[in-house]
Amino acid sequence: MKAAVDGKVQDIRAVWFEDGKVRMIDQRELPARIVLVDFDDYTDVAEAIRNMTTRGAPSIGATAAYAMCLAALKKCDLKKAAADIKAARPTANDLFYAVDFMTDALGKGSDPIEAADRYADMMVDKCTTIGKYGATLIHDGMKLMTHCNAGALATVDVGTALAPMRRAWADGKRFFVYVSETRPRLQGMQLTAWELGQEGIDHAIIPDGASAYYMSKGVDLIITGADRIAANGDFANKIGTFDKAIAAKHFGIPFYVAAPISTFDFDTKTGDDIVIEQRSSTEMTTVGNVRIAPEGSDVLNPAFDVTPADLVTGFITEKGILRPSEIWKVKE
Amino acid sequence: MKAAVDGKVQDIRAVWFEDGKVRMIDQRELPARIVLVDFDDYTDVAEAIRNMTTRGAPSIGATAAYAMCLAALKKCDLKKAAADIKAARPTANDLFYAVDFMTDALGKGSDPIEAADRYADMMVDKCTTIGKYGATLIHDGMKLMTHCNAGALATVDVGTALAPMRRAWADGKRFFVYVSETRPRLQGMQLTAWELGQEGIDHAIIPDGASAYYMSKGVDLIITGADRIAANGDFANKIGTFDKAIAAKHFGIPFYVAAPISTFDFDTKTGDDIVIEQRSSTEMTTVGNVRIAPEGSDVLNPAFDVTPADLVTGFITEKGILRPSEIWKVKE
Repeated sequence: MKAAVDGKVQDIRAVWFEDGKVRMIDQRELPARIVLVDFDDYTDVAEAIRNMTTRGAPSIGATAAYAMCLAALKKCDLKKAAADIKAARPTANDLFYAVDFMTDALGKGSDPIEAADRYADMMVDKCTTIGKYGATLIHDGMKLMTHCNAGALATVDVGTALAPMRRAWADGKRFFVYVSETRPRLQGMQLTAWELGQEGIDHAIIPDGASAYYMSKGVDLIITGADRIAANGDFANKIGTFDKAIAAKHFGIPFYVAAPISTFDFDTKTGDDIVIEQRSSTEMTTVGNVRIAPEGSDVLNPAFDVTPADLVTGFITEKGILRPSEIWKVKE
Repeated sequence: MKAAVDGKVQDIRAVWFEDGKVRMIDQRELPARIVLVDFDDYTDVAEAIRNMTTRGAPSIGATAAYAMCLAALKKCDLKKAAADIKAARPTANDLFYAVDFMTDALGKGSDPIEAADRYADMMVDKCTTIGKYGATLIHDGMKLMTHCNAGALATVDVGTALAPMRRAWADGKRFFVYVSETRPRLQGMQLTAWELGQEGIDHAIIPDGASAYYMSKGVDLIITGADRIAANGDFANKIGTFDKAIAAKHFGIPFYVAAPISTFDFDTKTGDDIVIEQRSSTEMTTVGNVRIAPEGSDVLNPAFDVTPADLVTGFITEKGILRPSEIWKVKE
């Protein structure tokens, strides 16, 4: 992705390995400034996943792979490292997938850096292919909507939900994207709008509650990412996704989910089996150092919701676009 | 309503007339502190409506009545004053209704203060009656949801959407209220949660995007206010109401709108005729002095959306609870 690091526009990734360290964009500092941070201890990388220095299921996966890489390079107990890293966030299937990938690769004697790089490159390749398939859904003059950030920041590079938009725009198609701000952490406003701005793609930030209003005025296509997709096609994604899927059905707007096959969890039968992470109330009650909520009120801050498969038009994957009824085809 | 003014809990209104001045709670300072402000010039009162020192359709109406009262006491040109005050906000029918009420009363030689007080008292009486009717819908153990602030702050006292909750709670019923925070101005988080807290009513603040998630877990009743109700039952209310109404239909949850008859505008045939106010982007891009959005991204900030009548279970009014098909009964 394009990002102006130290005043110079560079093409960088959300996370990578360099000089014995895991480097990443501190996504909590965006969009105000681009801050790169690095870690040489796997527990610090696990903490960076937990505190959302990096976020988005595929970026979490790659970060976890690099954390395992650090653990291997430093001769740590890999079983303990795997458990520690898996415990950083409860919802993203990519996290578990990446740790298992590394455990397997290291068990087979792979070089730790090569194996983690291979995992990250694989993600980027998948996103590029998702972009190619998804771009076929986008036509000139369309109005699109997305939620949260399923962009390059979330997926090492290119993005999932944003991949079709990048590709279609690069192909010369011209369209407009409604970006819902995504309270409480504002990943839509702060990350997706920032990414689209860097690419020069026409967009506007809207409040989460303005989704139905703008759908009623005409939205042609909705694309979101996913944090975990169950075997039946129910999927967990950022809180607010479910509201949009219901409204999309109400208005007859196609609702697509862009995600690599690694986000499918065939061990999870339905959405009912997905554990929803409840995050700290301070994410809602404060902005910067400003307290915005009354003292004494309870706050509920679920990170994700689960949208049932019957609200999904299709899943845009690196194996093509699948209807919910076709998911079984990609089960290895 | 109960409010701790200068450290002493008092029973006060959102706006009233005292010592030749219009006094009101500066609702922009809540929930951090209770600040009372007063004005002795009608143009300053109109500005207080415009900049949302006071807000909520019925409170705007009463404030407009007191503004007309000031204009009359100061022998201003009442025709110009009426036009100036009506121009303060474009959506709330109560604003126009109150100004016309005062023009009529003053034309008939009423005392300005008595006429404006009568208007405000009339609002409070209506809210009390709305509470009585609405409370019949609330039962022990229920989970309710509301949006924005249709409480005492919005309606001089008692509230519209909150009136049934106050009454049911006072009657000893015990229930729980999900309060959606209502971006961008957070009236749910900052005003409704604050009011419910003062009354001791169990509640929790949720992000706007968590509505469908909590509905899927079980919500029994949704009550919102309205800023304008068209002759066919379509109604304008705070942005995000439409999303909730669609989700309520999806889950089969009763969706009620609490509003006095003055909010019905029989000159507006359908929701298509309601002008939606677009407010400043800075309401979204900054919190306190903290800028939270990237530079260069467009922002759309519609204050209201229009929910079609077919998503409404009933209107809770001072004349009883009406189905959308029964609205004609209250047309004078």
